[in-house]
Amino acid sequence: MESFSVIEYISHNFTVIIDHLGTFAFAISGVRLAVNKQFDWFGAYVVGFITAIGGGTVRDLLLGVTPFWMLNASYLIVTAIALISFVFLRRIIERMNITIFLFDAIGLGLFTVVGIEKSLDANYPFWIAIIMGMITGSVGGVLRDIAINEIPLIFRREIYALACVAGGLVFTLCYYLGLSLPWTNGISATTVIVIRILANRFHVQLPTVK
Amino acid sequence: MESFSVIEYISHNFTVIIDHLGTFAFAISGVRLAVNKQFDWFGAYVVGFITAIGGGTVRDLLLGVTPFWMLNASYLIVTAIALISFVFLRRIIERMNITIFLFDAIGLGLFTVVGIEKSLDANYPFWIAIIMGMITGSVGGVLRDIAINEIPLIFRREIYALACVAGGLVFTLCYYLGLSLPWTNGISATTVIVIRILANRFHVQLPTVK
Amino acid sequence: MESFSVIEYISHNFTVIIDHLGTFAFAISGVRLAVNKQFDWFGAYVVGFITAIGGGTVRDLLLGVTPFWMLNASYLIVTAIALISFVFLRRIIERMNITIFLFDAIGLGLFTVVGIEKSLDANYPFWIAIIMGMITGSVGGVLRDIAINEIPLIFRREIYALACVAGGLVFTLCYYLGLSLPWTNGISATTVIVIRILANRFHVQLPTVK
Repeated sequence: MESFSVIEYISHNFTVIIDHLGTFAFAISGVRLAVNKQFDWFGAYVVGFITAIGGGTVRDLLLGVTPFWMLNASYLIVTAIALISFVFLRRIIERMNITIFLFDAIGLGLFTVVGIEKSLDANYPFWIAIIMGMITGSVGGVLRDIAINEIPLIFRREIYALACVAGGLVFTLCYYLGLSLPWTNGISATTVIVIRILANRFHVQLPTVK
Repeated sequence: MESFSVIEYISHNFTVIIDHLGTFAFAISGVRLAVNKQFDWFGAYVVGFITAIGGGTVRDLLLGVTPFWMLNASYLIVTAIALISFVFLRRIIERMNITIFLFDAIGLGLFTVVGIEKSLDANYPFWIAIIMGMITGSVGGVLRDIAINEIPLIFRREIYALACVAGGLVFTLCYYLGLSLPWTNGISATTVIVIRILANRFHVQLPTVK
Repeated sequence: MESFSVIEYISHNFTVIIDHLGTFAFAISGVRLAVNKQFDWFGAYVVGFITAIGGGTVRDLLLGVTPFWMLNASYLIVTAIALISFVFLRRIIERMNITIFLFDAIGLGLFTVVGIEKSLDANYPFWIAIIMGMITGSVGGVLRDIAINEIPLIFRREIYALACVAGGLVFTLCYYLGLSLPWTNGISATTVIVIRILANRFHVQLPTVK
């Protein structure tokens, strides 16, 4: 009985839950880079927050709705938890470089799905939803790179934003095949994450022009 | 009879037509710079798109309306055509450096007029419309320069944003003189383009302070 | 009788007045940096304007209201006055480096209060108002630094954005203590300005992580 309720709760709140998991993952990636640049703890917090909410904020401004983090203080709190976790577990996190990469890939997948769903909820067509999924997943990292004054590598490194587009196409396919929302969410987030991991593992890059 | 219909069609759809011509011109300029920076084809596409729609997007966010490219997939398609044209005609385009410059100047003039008209349609006064014309014309190039990590040269090179302001003043003048919309559009776009070409040809620059 | 009216006028228009004073202070700081980078006078004007209205514009986009400077041409005019003042008083201003710093600190304090008030007027809770106060005070300087291609130092130099947060907390406290609006405004703006001056004078910096 109880385990059923948990599953039910999760499937009803899937978007909210993955949104916060993605926030945690992206905030960690922002905090880590800021700390490595000798930012003070307040600066690290702000960069973590911008990384976590930047993509969704640009998406919400384009969709013409109130930015999601202004409706609920939980994103500020999750970022604070990410900062504290990083401070106390820094040695462990830094030693496991692969963990950081995984956090980033998971955040990318989760945010892409959140962006797609929110756009469809606002009655935009699928091609807009796919673009919004890509913006939700990628723009936070671009703003983070600008804030710490690094070159945004998004357009040159192994398949990144294109993984979000692939996830969006899979989402569209699942939708037309009539899959339930949790399955559609899960499959398309997994698509993004797997593509990102494989591209990084095997250094797959798109060809340059000519 | 037929040629009359064509003229009528053009005069009724002037804004839409010049908007797409400007999109093509700006997308080419973005794609070209991205390709020269070894961006992959997806990156080149995204930079071309940002260059083409960046100014109008900032304008629409400031005006509080849905960004124009979200209402119609044609801007995505025009950018794709620009990318393909560039790939196949690259040698010719690169050899004719003057062509690239002309594309940029034409895009500047066309976008300025589109920005002015859209602001007036939204019932803003002329001084806002002139600023919005300048934003529509200039901001895409600034975002392009940030995306490819170049210094935005807009404030230091030969008269650029100021050409948009001149076009806006000419538009205002034509309006109060009672000229028809196609004539007003044509004269003010031409003003921007001619000023830009002359400033570049004769290296006209504004004085620095002191 | 007359002096009473002046006080009454000031207390009724406090937000408008400090908004324009802050605009002047921030515009001067933008113009000065642009001139030192050999920008032409139009470029200096645009950078001054962006510095002055950038924070409030981002705030208004997030709050979903029309950017304040689009409702009233006075911000364009104040920026023009700042540019002219700078040109004619440049020697005096440059010699008094402390003056520039004071202008910046005063602008920071005034804009923080304006941002807080506007958010509360739009029925947002205090935690949003505090963030909007910080954005209003800090973002103009960040955009200025990006426009002149300098590294945004905001996250690394002596307490800056955090001074805005402190001012926001003091505002909240005054509000719950039932102080009148002019007093609340004055005390919290002063808090920001004093913290900023003391932090700069004694080189107070937050600790970095670890």
